Amino acid sequence: MELEFLGTGAGVPSKGRNVSSIALKMLDERNEVWLFDVGEATQHQILKTAIKPRKITKIFISHLHGDHIFGLPGLLSSRANQGGNSPLEIYGPVGIKEYVETSLKVTGGKLGYRIKYIELKNDGEIFNDKTFSVSAGKLKHRITCFGYRVVEKPRTGELLVDKLEQYNIPNGPIFGQLKAGKTVTLDDGTVLNGKDFIGPDKPSKVVTVISDTRYTPKIDELAQDADVLVHESTFSNDEKQLAYNYYHSTATQAAEVAKRRNVKGLILTHISARYTGRGAFILQKEAQKIFKHTKVANDFDIYEVPFK
Amino acid sequence: MELEFLGTGAGVPSKGRNVSSIALKMLDERNEVWLFDVGEATQHQILKTAIKPRKITKIFISHLHGDHIFGLPGLLSSRANQGGNSPLEIYGPVGIKEYVETSLKVTGGKLGYRIKYIELKNDGEIFNDKTFSVSAGKLKHRITCFGYRVVEKPRTGELLVDKLEQYNIPNGPIFGQLKAGKTVTLDDGTVLNGKDFIGPDKPSKVVTVISDTRYTPKIDELAQDADVLVHESTFSNDEKQLAYNYYHSTATQAAEVAKRRNVKGLILTHISARYTGRGAFILQKEAQKIFKHTKVANDFDIYEVPFK
Ligand SMILES: [Zn+2]
Ligand SMILES: [Zn+2]
Repeated sequence: MELEFLGTGAGVPSKGRNVSSIALKMLDERNEVWLFDVGEATQHQILKTAIKPRKITKIFISHLHGDHIFGLPGLLSSRANQGGNSPLEIYGPVGIKEYVETSLKVTGGKLGYRIKYIELKNDGEIFNDKTFSVSAGKLKHRITCFGYRVVEKPRTGELLVDKLEQYNIPNGPIFGQLKAGKTVTLDDGTVLNGKDFIGPDKPSKVVTVISDTRYTPKIDELAQDADVLVHESTFSNDEKQLAYNYYHSTATQAAEVAKRRNVKGLILTHISARYTGRGAFILQKEAQKIFKHTKVANDFDIYEVPFK
Repeated sequence: MELEFLGTGAGVPSKGRNVSSIALKMLDERNEVWLFDVGEATQHQILKTAIKPRKITKIFISHLHGDHIFGLPGLLSSRANQGGNSPLEIYGPVGIKEYVETSLKVTGGKLGYRIKYIELKNDGEIFNDKTFSVSAGKLKHRITCFGYRVVEKPRTGELLVDKLEQYNIPNGPIFGQLKAGKTVTLDDGTVLNGKDFIGPDKPSKVVTVISDTRYTPKIDELAQDADVLVHESTFSNDEKQLAYNYYHSTATQAAEVAKRRNVKGLILTHISARYTGRGAFILQKEAQKIFKHTKVANDFDIYEVPFK
């Protein structure tokens, strides 16, 4: 699992940072890409990456401010243009459906794939299948805004091929059966139980994405034990009052959550244009005083989950 | 008057060309900028130019395909963010108001300036003041699409200061009175008639913008005697049938109009991504065989009206 930052700026695009969008790339896990927010020109950013729009299967919208949604109609159209025909799910606050459907309706075109809208009203689990679950929690912004917690369930360990070497098993279906935990009898009568040849479960992984918000206890809940906490950091602690007035967070507030909630790594994003160029390092340093394993994201940064 | 091309591609953004937008800069004439179409990321393109969003006073939308309108909500928001508070007019086919208003409504914000929508149903004059007039004409695209003809009215000539030198006129209001065509009596009793000291009227200037369309006689009417004809040229003559099927034009068709209608200069835009890099010169050469003074526009090209 990797996070690729497509837009790390706040409010309006600047030369250095586009407006909000983050890709969660789960190519090994699901052969899918999920997006968190789609600011204007997200499709233009994607053009400069290896991401294929047709692999985007879920989009999670935090809130309906323009810098988080105005790239959605264009991205959906281009996904169709580039041969995307699999269904797509869009999660977000009430209103997201009207916005997207009106935008697509006026253009008079058909996408060629189905969109399922999941408009959120309450906190709680919003998705759950064999390998992943997602929950949403209400943050505290000027308008309704959700944070998201993505949990990869523990995965079965690897087949221990070294340990199997002594049995001279021929290439073929036996490996698959052992990997599936089945019991197999070899030609020479040896009985092998798959469970004895599978390594330890790969642990659960958690990614939490907290966009525009003042501090609210819900953030703590969503961030608990996260491998990566992505947290908005529009301002530095010097502008604490401004952050509060505008319903935003400071680098210090993000770091305090990370420390308190046993997070493995913190990534700051949604950086105000006042912190241009190296200026964003002020935010990183501020957070690192409280929580050492912190990075400020730049457009096109890629982070492993968890990252080093 | 200058044309600045902000997006010269067709359908979807590519690395070389953004989707459609053209700025008509009338800084000397009106201290205003007018836009023709606003594809996604037009505000990002404007960031790389000297254009100030608050100087944009009129936007003319040709049709409601996404590659011509999906940048509108973001541009309008950023215009407000950057201190734009003067009213703005948006001209375009029926539906443009619903699209813009829905997009702005879901974001929950107020722009701080008034938008006047002029939804077009018929051909004819859509704007007229002391110095400029604009008319619209229906083109032939898959959905309702308008071409626009902008006419700068003839302007009074310059004051001929060289010819006035012999009279030793003191700096001050007399120059203004002469320039206004008034009769003035100097201290030594000399009587001067302003009309004798004003050069010839500056001629009318015409810019015609023809976006997505098959050939239709209306184009001829809009293009008559234009100083600059901007014409879509999605395809080359080799793809004439494809152009027809998709309701688009070829470079040859654009050049034929320019030749037939006494146009001074032709600029081709809305170039299909199949003509990458120098490939677009195929279109230019094709048109030049018929109409010599032809250029293919690239993003960020600036052309005087008329251009050399
Ligand atoms: Zn934001
Ligand atoms: Zn088009």
